[in-house]
Amino acid sequence: MAYSAVRSEAGRAGAVLADSNDPLAPYRELFVITDPELVYFDGNSLGRLPKKTMNHLQNVIQQEWGTQLIRGWGTGWYDAPHRVGDKIGSLIGAAAGQVLACDSTSVNLYKAVMAALHARPGKHTVVSDAMNFPSDLYILQAAITHYGNTHTLRLVQSHDAELTVTPDAIAAAITTDTALVCLSHVTFKSGFIYDMQEITRRAHEVGALVVWDLSHSAGAVPMQLDGWNVDFAVGCCYKFLNGGPGAPAFIYVNKNIQAHVTSPIWGWFGQKSPFAFDIDYTPADGIDRFLAGTPPMLALSAVEASLDMLVPVGMHAIREKSIALTEYLIALYDSHLAELGFSLGSPRDAAKRGSHVSIRHPLGYQINQALIAEQKVIPDFREPDNLRLGLSPLTTSFVEVWDGVDRIRATVVAGTHHKYPAARKAVT
Amino acid sequence: MAYSAVRSEAGRAGAVLADSNDPLAPYRELFVITDPELVYFDGNSLGRLPKKTMNHLQNVIQQEWGTQLIRGWGTGWYDAPHRVGDKIGSLIGAAAGQVLACDSTSVNLYKAVMAALHARPGKHTVVSDAMNFPSDLYILQAAITHYGNTHTLRLVQSHDAELTVTPDAIAAAITTDTALVCLSHVTFKSGFIYDMQEITRRAHEVGALVVWDLSHSAGAVPMQLDGWNVDFAVGCCYKFLNGGPGAPAFIYVNKNIQAHVTSPIWGWFGQKSPFAFDIDYTPADGIDRFLAGTPPMLALSAVEASLDMLVPVGMHAIREKSIALTEYLIALYDSHLAELGFSLGSPRDAAKRGSHVSIRHPLGYQINQALIAEQKVIPDFREPDNLRLGLSPLTTSFVEVWDGVDRIRATVVAGTHHKYPAARKAVT
Repeated sequence: MAYSAVRSEAGRAGAVLADSNDPLAPYRELFVITDPELVYFDGNSLGRLPKKTMNHLQNVIQQEWGTQLIRGWGTGWYDAPHRVGDKIGSLIGAAAGQVLACDSTSVNLYKAVMAALHARPGKHTVVSDAMNFPSDLYILQAAITHYGNTHTLRLVQSHDAELTVTPDAIAAAITTDTALVCLSHVTFKSGFIYDMQEITRRAHEVGALVVWDLSHSAGAVPMQLDGWNVDFAVGCCYKFLNGGPGAPAFIYVNKNIQAHVTSPIWGWFGQKSPFAFDIDYTPADGIDRFLAGTPPMLALSAVEASLDMLVPVGMHAIREKSIALTEYLIALYDSHLAELGFSLGSPRDAAKRGSHVSIRHPLGYQINQALIAEQKVIPDFREPDNLRLGLSPLTTSFVEVWDGVDRIRATVVAGTHHKYPAARKAVT
Repeated sequence: MAYSAVRSEAGRAGAVLADSNDPLAPYRELFVITDPELVYFDGNSLGRLPKKTMNHLQNVIQQEWGTQLIRGWGTGWYDAPHRVGDKIGSLIGAAAGQVLACDSTSVNLYKAVMAALHARPGKHTVVSDAMNFPSDLYILQAAITHYGNTHTLRLVQSHDAELTVTPDAIAAAITTDTALVCLSHVTFKSGFIYDMQEITRRAHEVGALVVWDLSHSAGAVPMQLDGWNVDFAVGCCYKFLNGGPGAPAFIYVNKNIQAHVTSPIWGWFGQKSPFAFDIDYTPADGIDRFLAGTPPMLALSAVEASLDMLVPVGMHAIREKSIALTEYLIALYDSHLAELGFSLGSPRDAAKRGSHVSIRHPLGYQINQALIAEQKVIPDFREPDNLRLGLSPLTTSFVEVWDGVDRIRATVVAGTHHKYPAARKAVT
């Protein structure tokens, strides 16, 4: 394994050595890094800017929009949601023709959930978990409200401090009355990885459909959507896919069910022949029926520029580096932070952990502020006490991890966080 | 009136003179025009690229995304949907706090229609017209399907060749059972302007709500959404607002009804406190409840760059130029095209006409192809026989109108269109 030499006891020199041995280290050079001292632990919230994005967008804006004008739709724009979608598909184990890059994650989740409930009219339970991203739960609540409140939302709880859930715990909540199991593949706080294959299998056994949210796993954790026979998945392109703030999201609909499900939002790009301008809606064949409005070309171009760099790296190499980074971080946590009142909020087992690690502290919110304001460390704070540290395989270095932990320790030892307010800000 | 000198009988020299007298002519210089010979009659489908957009985006991408990274959300991004929305509001007669720039027109229309039907549970008719943009009808069909097919969609027909509809004709279709009247302010083929004020008044008389689609009027035709007490409106930013291909759209919800309606799509940006991560959805106060996912910052920035140029011009000046352009085009149609088998597909009365003019010809589809391929004229073709000529007040010149008509005439006189296929292409 390329990263076997990363040992926490070797100090900062060990991190320097690890970076010099890291086969993915050159990728960091392909991103804009204006402040080399900044420790950016938030690539899982907003990925860094690839250097090529600006040039690519400049070409799309000046050559395509500026010069081709409306003719751009005939020369590449029209296919962009599929083309970009297929590139995302190559990262998540989806063959061509099943992924669209479009809309926001919320809107795509709404489409998938509504389509799933519509396809299981006789079943009245929806299973998710209490650690799911709240926005996902809101969408489930919205869909249930639309269907006349005839469904019950059952939220499975975690049984341990690392916020993991066994497939058995999910399976215990699934019955023949379950229409849908909707979970985040990697949970947003603890970074726990669900056993997507096993849960999908168990859901299918009783006739339920599954919708997986891949926002925290796409581009960080390998998966086989086709191989595991997943029904629907959605995800975000501004985290590990480095597509830019508020980048278009994606939706996956398995080829096996495409003909049997429809989007709730019938827009012209989801119509069989958009430019025939028929007055009655007929859904397009295939994945296209999950399109709605006109594709956002500028934003899609930024996503595509990043994917063209990321896809050739391969998920195996990305995952290997990701595990090395989180293992290293946890080793440093043990030696530098555990004694300072922190507890680990993520699984110790690398196989159950995505590409972020949460460390918990009763004064976590104040520590988070001190790190940003005084230490050039940018974590994310997640209620009630999580410092969420995102490690982005293509851009996070081992030295960055070392420096980050070192500065977290220095902050807590010096007690500089005590001067920051304990109240939550509106936006973190 | 600034444009009184534009006389069709004065020939091309008259057009040159008109441009030299046009107070808005300098705005054309603020757009990228790589081929001065190109006659672009499609600014109502995809508006031209403002020169400042590239610089503005470059700043957002390199300075904000590249350098501020996640901190951008605290320094301008978070408010972008409202900030850009309020700028759009200033063009459509909406005071601050009622417009969001977000999602696509289709998604926003879906939100508005679903919210309206939900707010009128005892009423079971939806009124629109047969000339409406099909995508709008699809959304109505989708919403009705969701509500269990308990609503009837009533489509008013036009009674004349110019495809106009009187307020009386709409009013005749509205009853006390009408939940919603949903129309395009300016229709996409003929460019007919509905009497929004009168129809809204008549709908309210019987307790119906209104949703207006402003895609073909925002930035081209003045209106007073607040003054006319409109309930909902949606529209597109890639036409007369020059926001770029597939730009984010907008949604208007009148302050008077905001507390009584909710979006069907409950995403975290529509939640009262998105970063409290409550498990249960509580809609935000005010217009925010119609947000769903994370705002698309790159795309919103392109819209904002354009609006910052367009808003100060003022809708009065824009409308004056727009009328002068369409009047001039119709005069040239009368003198140059009417005798060649064309008929006018748009209202002759300027008060009833938006900023595009359709001219109809049995071989319109072939003529359209010949113009694009051989004449450097880009119209839009709309089934079954419309050459739709969009005149964008800030970018279309009078010489462009003259040259365009001159080349249409030359094409038809020479018969070069006969060699083009009569079958419809997939994308026009």
